[in-house]
Amino acid sequence: MVDYGIKYWSNDDFIIDKGVVKVNYKSKPALIDIVKEAREKGYKGPLLLRFPHLIENQITKLYTAFETSIKEYQYQGKFKAVFPLKVNQMPNFVLPLVQVSKDKHYGLEAGSKSELIIAMAYTNKQSPITVNGFKDKEMISLGFIAANMGHDITLTIEGLNELKTIIEVAKEMCEPYPNIGLRIRLHSIGTGIWAKSGGITSKFGLTSTELLEAMRMLEESQLLHKFTMIHFHIGSQISDISPLKKAIREVGNIYAELRKMGASNLKAVNIGGGLAVEYAQHEGMNCRNYTLNEFSGDVVFSLKEIAKNKNELEPDIFIESGRFISASHAVLIAPVLELFSQEYDEEALRLKEQNPQLVEELNDLYNSITEKNAIEYLHDSLDHMESLLTLFDLGYIDLQDRSNTEILVHLIIKKVIQLLKYKNHNDILKIQKSVQERYLLNCSFFQSLPDYWGLEQIFPVMPLDRLNRRPTRAASLWDITCDSDGEISFNPQMPLFLHDVDVSKEEYFLGFFLVGAYQEVLGMRHNLFTHPTEFSVVFDDELNKDYEIENLLEAQTIVDVLDDLDYDTKEIERILKQHIEESDLDIENKKIVLGKLYVMLSENGYLRTISVQDSIKQENS
Amino acid sequence: MVDYGIKYWSNDDFIIDKGVVKVNYKSKPALIDIVKEAREKGYKGPLLLRFPHLIENQITKLYTAFETSIKEYQYQGKFKAVFPLKVNQMPNFVLPLVQVSKDKHYGLEAGSKSELIIAMAYTNKQSPITVNGFKDKEMISLGFIAANMGHDITLTIEGLNELKTIIEVAKEMCEPYPNIGLRIRLHSIGTGIWAKSGGITSKFGLTSTELLEAMRMLEESQLLHKFTMIHFHIGSQISDISPLKKAIREVGNIYAELRKMGASNLKAVNIGGGLAVEYAQHEGMNCRNYTLNEFSGDVVFSLKEIAKNKNELEPDIFIESGRFISASHAVLIAPVLELFSQEYDEEALRLKEQNPQLVEELNDLYNSITEKNAIEYLHDSLDHMESLLTLFDLGYIDLQDRSNTEILVHLIIKKVIQLLKYKNHNDILKIQKSVQERYLLNCSFFQSLPDYWGLEQIFPVMPLDRLNRRPTRAASLWDITCDSDGEISFNPQMPLFLHDVDVSKEEYFLGFFLVGAYQEVLGMRHNLFTHPTEFSVVFDDELNKDYEIENLLEAQTIVDVLDDLDYDTKEIERILKQHIEESDLDIENKKIVLGKLYVMLSENGYLRTISVQDSIKQENS
Repeated sequence: MVDYGIKYWSNDDFIIDKGVVKVNYKSKPALIDIVKEAREKGYKGPLLLRFPHLIENQITKLYTAFETSIKEYQYQGKFKAVFPLKVNQMPNFVLPLVQVSKDKHYGLEAGSKSELIIAMAYTNKQSPITVNGFKDKEMISLGFIAANMGHDITLTIEGLNELKTIIEVAKEMCEPYPNIGLRIRLHSIGTGIWAKSGGITSKFGLTSTELLEAMRMLEESQLLHKFTMIHFHIGSQISDISPLKKAIREVGNIYAELRKMGASNLKAVNIGGGLAVEYAQHEGMNCRNYTLNEFSGDVVFSLKEIAKNKNELEPDIFIESGRFISASHAVLIAPVLELFSQEYDEEALRLKEQNPQLVEELNDLYNSITEKNAIEYLHDSLDHMESLLTLFDLGYIDLQDRSNTEILVHLIIKKVIQLLKYKNHNDILKIQKSVQERYLLNCSFFQSLPDYWGLEQIFPVMPLDRLNRRPTRAASLWDITCDSDGEISFNPQMPLFLHDVDVSKEEYFLGFFLVGAYQEVLGMRHNLFTHPTEFSVVFDDELNKDYEIENLLEAQTIVDVLDDLDYDTKEIERILKQHIEESDLDIENKKIVLGKLYVMLSENGYLRTISVQDSIKQENS
Repeated sequence: MVDYGIKYWSNDDFIIDKGVVKVNYKSKPALIDIVKEAREKGYKGPLLLRFPHLIENQITKLYTAFETSIKEYQYQGKFKAVFPLKVNQMPNFVLPLVQVSKDKHYGLEAGSKSELIIAMAYTNKQSPITVNGFKDKEMISLGFIAANMGHDITLTIEGLNELKTIIEVAKEMCEPYPNIGLRIRLHSIGTGIWAKSGGITSKFGLTSTELLEAMRMLEESQLLHKFTMIHFHIGSQISDISPLKKAIREVGNIYAELRKMGASNLKAVNIGGGLAVEYAQHEGMNCRNYTLNEFSGDVVFSLKEIAKNKNELEPDIFIESGRFISASHAVLIAPVLELFSQEYDEEALRLKEQNPQLVEELNDLYNSITEKNAIEYLHDSLDHMESLLTLFDLGYIDLQDRSNTEILVHLIIKKVIQLLKYKNHNDILKIQKSVQERYLLNCSFFQSLPDYWGLEQIFPVMPLDRLNRRPTRAASLWDITCDSDGEISFNPQMPLFLHDVDVSKEEYFLGFFLVGAYQEVLGMRHNLFTHPTEFSVVFDDELNKDYEIENLLEAQTIVDVLDDLDYDTKEIERILKQHIEESDLDIENKKIVLGKLYVMLSENGYLRTISVQDSIKQENS
C-alpha cells in the first residue's frame, strides 16, 4: 500500500491504521473523524487543526536532546531556549506553548514591537526573552520597561547605532536594565566569503572591528557588566550540519577573545535557529543530513572543545529554533471539491463518415498499439495532435474533429500506461503527467501555504482515508484562487497519487502536514480568501471523551473581510438592498433574494456546495 | 546625471526637475514635499501614496488605443473592459476607479464571493461585471441576484459542473438571468502543448469535447440564448505579443464554430488580461516587446481576419487587464533609517608592533598597489583574508588581527575601485558589490513588495531628491524584518547607486514605483508589520491648493494588529499594567513607564527614531 512517506516526515506523530490517518496519542482518533465532527457543526471550507500536545512533544524532545548531550560531555554550561515569535504569533499556538513549557523556562524571542508586547505579556517571569532585529529608540525603551517589570530580557544589538541608543536610554530609565547581546557577523557561512546567507555581506551582525568598538563603548558607558550574550544565526532549515560546526568554532573564538578583553559577564552563546524539519515524502529527498541528537551533540562538543583550548568558562547555550517547535502542531485540511478528469472513454468519440486524414491515422494508431510499439506510437500520436491543432487554428478541421483528436490521444496514452505498467517506471511517470487528474481543493495556497508560492517549499500531503485502497490517479492539486500559480502540479520526481472518487457522492479530504511554521502569518489574502476556520484538538485524561475541540475560531465572514479592507460595509449593505428594491422582482421575490444575500454576507468566502447532488441533499435535509 | 531609468518606466507620469521627482500633472508637486507634509502631521514609517489621476490616465489610454484601432480597421464589434478586482481590491483604489470610469462603462471582474459583493455594490449599472474562477452554488446564485438587480453580468464557466449548477439555479431563480461565458482551454500557449501557463494541462477552461457537451447542455436546458461570450487568458504580464496573436486565431476559430452550431447570441470574445507593465529601470532589460497601440492593433486585426475568413459577425472585444490599469497609481515611500557602511579609513587600523605574517603582507599590498597590479593584488588580498579568517577560527590570531584584516581588505578594494574608475566598468561593478553600502529602509518587503519575495519581481526605485548630485554608493536595500530574504542586494547587472547621506542629520527617502497591482492584497504580515499609512493625492481645479491629501488611512496600531490575530488585547493591557505595578519601580516611575507603554500600544509597529541625534531633536521640540 502507498503510505505517503509517513515514515519519513511524521516522526510517529501521525500513523496509518485501518486505512485512515490517526493522531498517535492517547485515544488515537482518526483525523477524518475529527474533521467530520467539525463539518457536522456547520464549518465548511478548509480547516486548520492544531494539536497542542505536539508543541509540548517538540519542546520536550529539544530539551531532552541537549540535556543528554550536556550530561554525556559533562558540559558545565546550561541549556536555554526561546521560541521566535515570527514563526507563529497566533494566540492559539503561543498561549498553549507558554502554558506547557512553564517548567522548562522556555522563553520567547521578539523581532518587532508587536512581538515584544506579546512576549512581555505572556512570557513566564523565570523564562528568558530575547529581542533581535532592527530597533528604534521606542523599541529599546520597551526592552527597558520589560526589564523593569522583572523580565529576564536580552537585547541583541544589530549595529553600533543601536548600542549608542541603548546607552542613551540607560541614562533616562531606571534599573534593572536589560542584558545586552551582540550579534556576530560570521565569515564561515555558505560556499564563499561573499555568500548571501551569512558571510561578510549578510544582513545582520557586527564585524570584528565593530565588536572592538562595541567593547570600547560598553566600557566607557559602564555597561560592560550588562553584556552577557553573543548571537549568530546561519540560516533557516539547515540541511547540512558541517557549516554549523564551523560557525561555532568561529564564534567560540570570538567568545573567548571578548572574555579575555574583560567581558566577564559574557556567559552565553546564542546559536540562533536553523534546526531543520523533515518535510520529505519520498525516499532520497530528505531535507537534512543529521538527527536531533547529532545536532545537540555537535553543538555541545564544539563549544566544550573551544572552551578547553582557550581555557575559558563553558558558556550557556541558547537556541532560537522555531520551525522545529511549531511545524508539526498544525495540519491543514482541504476538502476536494471536484475532479477535473477530462477522462474520456471510447463512447465519447464521435467519428464522422469522413474524417481528416490524421484523425484516421490516430484511430489506426489506437487500434494497433502493442507493448512493443507503445512508446513509438505515443510519440506519433502527440505529433499528430500538434498538427491537427494547427489545422484547426488554420480553419481546416472543425470542432468535432478537434474533440475526436483530444479523445483519441487521451485513449492512446491510457493504453500505453496500461501496456507498460510493469516496466519503465520512470517513463510511465512522465507519461502520467499528461493524463493527470486535477483535484480542485477548497483552500487557497496563497493563504495557507505561502512558502509553496514563495520558496517552492513542499509540504507532505495525503488523503485522510481510503488508505487501504491503492490510489491510481496521478494528481495535480488546484486551489480556488483565480491564479495559475495556485497549482501544485504532478511531479514525476515526487509523484502524488490519489484515489478515484466521485465527490458528488462521497467526501474526500486531503491533509497538508507540518504547516505550523510561518504559513499563517505569511498568508496572503489573494482573491480575498482569508484564514481558514481553526480549532485545537485537546486530549485530557480527565475527560470522558476521546478528545475535545477547543478554541474554535471561524473563518472571517465576507462582511468582516471587506471591513478589514476598510470598506464601509454599512454602505455596501444599503446599496445592495436598494438595488434589490429598485429591481423588477415582485415583492415576494425581493424578500427571498434579500434574505439569501444577507446569509451569504454572514458566511465565509470559501466555497460550500459544488456538485448538484450535494446541493439537492442539502435542500432535502 | 543618473536618472534611475525614469524614461523607461514612468511614461512621463513622474519627471525629474530641479533635482527632485515630481508628479507630472497640473501643479507638478515634488514627491518629497508631499511626503514631508504627511510627516509633519506625524505620520512616521512607510507611506503609500495613491494618485487617482493616474487610474483615469491608464483607463483613457486603454480605451483610446482600442477605439483608434477599431476605427482604423473599420471593425464592427465594440470594445469593452473590466477591472479584475483581484489585482487591487482596496476601497481607495476601487471607488475612485468606478468614479472616473463611469462615462466609459468600465466594469469590474470578480473571482470570489467577496469580490463579487464589491462589484455588485459599486459597478455602475451600465457597466459590465464578469465573474471568473471556481464557483459553488452560492456564488452562482449571487450572480443571479446581481442580474435580478439589473447588472449586466456574465458568469464564465470553468467546468461542466458549474454549468450544471447554473442550469439548476435557473430553475429556482427569477429572470433576468445572468449571461453565460465559456472559458476555452487553449493549446497554443507557451513553448509546448503540455506547457504549464495555458496549454492542455492548464488550470482553467474547457476542452473541445467539453465545449461540445456544454453546447448540448445549454440547448437542452433552453439557456443557449444566454451564452454570449467566450473567454481565454494566456497569462499575466505578456512579454511577447506573438503567442497572443496565435491564441486569438485559435479562439477565433472556436468562436466561429460555436456560432455555426447555433450559438447565435455569442457575440463577444474576452481576451483576459496580460497587457504588460514596463518595470525596467535599465537599458536592455525591458519587460515587453510591444507598445499599447501594437497590442490593440494586433487584437483587432486578428479578430477581423478570422471573422472575414469564416464569414461571421465581428465580435465585441472584452479585456480584463488589471496590472496595466492599477500599477502606476501607487508609490511606496520608504524612509532610510540608517546606512550600515562598514566604511573604514586608515585611522581605524590598529596594527601591532608584531603582526601575523599575512597581515603584514596585506599591509604591503595596500601600500604598493597600482593601476597595473590592481586586480592581481585584489585577488591576493581576498586569498589572504580567507587564510587569516581560518587562522582566527583555529585560534592562531586574535580579534584585533582579524579587525585589521577586515580594514586592510576594505581599503584595498576601495583603492582598486579608485584606480580602475575609468576602465573595466563591468569588473568595477562586480568589485563594488563587495563594498556595497547597506541602506536600512523603514518598511517590510514582505508586506509592501510581496512579488519581490515570491517572483523576484523588480520595481523601479529611486531617491526622491538630491537628483542633481551624482550617487556614488553601490547600494543594497534592507527592510526591517528579521528575515535575510528582506534584502534587495546590489546586482551588477542592474546596479543601483544611492547618495552618501548622514541620516542622523538629514532625511533621505526612496520611492518604489508601480506598486499599485497585487502588492497590497498579497502583503504578508511578517514580524507583524502591516499595511503602511496610505493617502490619495488629489488635484482639483477648484481648489486653491496645489493638491489635496485625501482618504488618509493610518497604519494599524500595535493593539489593532494583535486584535486582528485574535489576541485578547484587554487582557494584554491588564497583564502589562499588573507587571508594572508589581515591579520594584517607585510610584512616580511606575506612572511614567505605564504612560510610555500606552503611547507605544497606540502607535503603529514600524520604527520611528533611529539615530540618537534625531531622538534628541524630538525631545527638545
